[in-house]
Amino acid sequence: MPYVNVRITPGATRRQKAELIAGVTELLVRVLDKNPDTTHVVIDEVEPDNWGLGGLPVDEFRKRGNG
Amino acid sequence: MPYVNVRITPGATRRQKAELIAGVTELLVRVLDKNPDTTHVVIDEVEPDNWGLGGLPVDEFRKRGNG
Amino acid sequence: MPYVNVRITPGATRRQKAELIAGVTELLVRVLDKNPDTTHVVIDEVEPDNWGLGGLPVDEFRKRGNG
Amino acid sequence: MPYVNVRITPGATRRQKAELIAGVTELLVRVLDKNPDTTHVVIDEVEPDNWGLGGLPVDEFRKRGNG
Amino acid sequence: MPYVNVRITPGATRRQKAELIAGVTELLVRVLDKNPDTTHVVIDEVEPDNWGLGGLPVDEFRKRGNG
Amino acid sequence: MPYVNVRITPGATRRQKAELIAGVTELLVRVLDKNPDTTHVVIDEVEPDNWGLGGLPVDEFRKRGNG
Repeated sequence: MPYVNVRITPGATRRQKAELIAGVTELLVRVLDKNPDTTHVVIDEVEPDNWGLGGLPVDEFRKRGNG
Repeated sequence: MPYVNVRITPGATRRQKAELIAGVTELLVRVLDKNPDTTHVVIDEVEPDNWGLGGLPVDEFRKRGNG
Repeated sequence: MPYVNVRITPGATRRQKAELIAGVTELLVRVLDKNPDTTHVVIDEVEPDNWGLGGLPVDEFRKRGNG
Repeated sequence: MPYVNVRITPGATRRQKAELIAGVTELLVRVLDKNPDTTHVVIDEVEPDNWGLGGLPVDEFRKRGNG
Repeated sequence: MPYVNVRITPGATRRQKAELIAGVTELLVRVLDKNPDTTHVVIDEVEPDNWGLGGLPVDEFRKRGNG
Repeated sequence: MPYVNVRITPGATRRQKAELIAGVTELLVRVLDKNPDTTHVVIDEVEPDNWGLGGLPVDEFRKRGNG
């Protein structure tokens, strides 16, 4: 425990992903006193064509001045 | 809210994926009066070797006249 | 195939959930010619305290006139 | 975007869950400049009987001085 | 690693769930030489009203002599 | 039913993935008498940079003699 799944569109650098992993783990240790060595953080990178918001693929949603 | 994850094997075109995103969002708006602008639809495309059905990789399952 | 996971906060009636199941399945049959008898639609109902948006539990997010 | 799913065993208070939601959202805003108003954080609480580690239900795993 | 999520409808006993946890872990150790102490197996029990197959809630799907 | 999601880092061969699919399905048939033809097993392969353990990307975690 725990298992955290972070789903984002591509673009994060290796360093940023390492920062997310460290930050989420630190948060769970600080707030819930979890054991970092059994805390899994898994990042999924989802292509924009495959992510819909407002009924549109996210790139189109953004073009309409949203999100 | 809501968050909808659609898992399929590859092959859907960009237009078909946009149609799934629009259709799922419209359904949630119509049935549950959800706000489309906070309704996420995420499509995952899973390779056939990685999808099992009937204890077999799906291509083999289909060859046996199933699914 | 396919597998669809719909995550919402509680409140949908049994009939509405059946409508979501039918609607998502019909969409996948129509758009991608999928076999309804191997199409799974799973609805998860997540308590508002456990769903965050805008950095807040969703009920507080809504009170601030969002979502 | 993004969607973050945090899976933990029960025991977190309402305030701690709000702290997790705020902390994860702040991290994604700081590291990846994400929009907090479309950043979803969903917490799932899984009963110990339903969480296995080391081939055992987690309570038994802990009794053996692990995790 | 690995993380395995088993989604079933309710009804499994505590002993059966422990058997699933042990069996999945043993399989990953045997086939992929994974470390059991960082192998998570999480079981989700989904109410029949919330699980759709063939466009129907699963109990109705079964009544029609399927599945 | 059921739906099983196996998340691992890349490296499993096609034959090993078929063995996982067969093994998980056999386990669910044996322990819970499930119908193999509606039992889905989906394998996700997650890049090491995207999998964190102990607050580190998994390759670094392993280099420190863990896991």
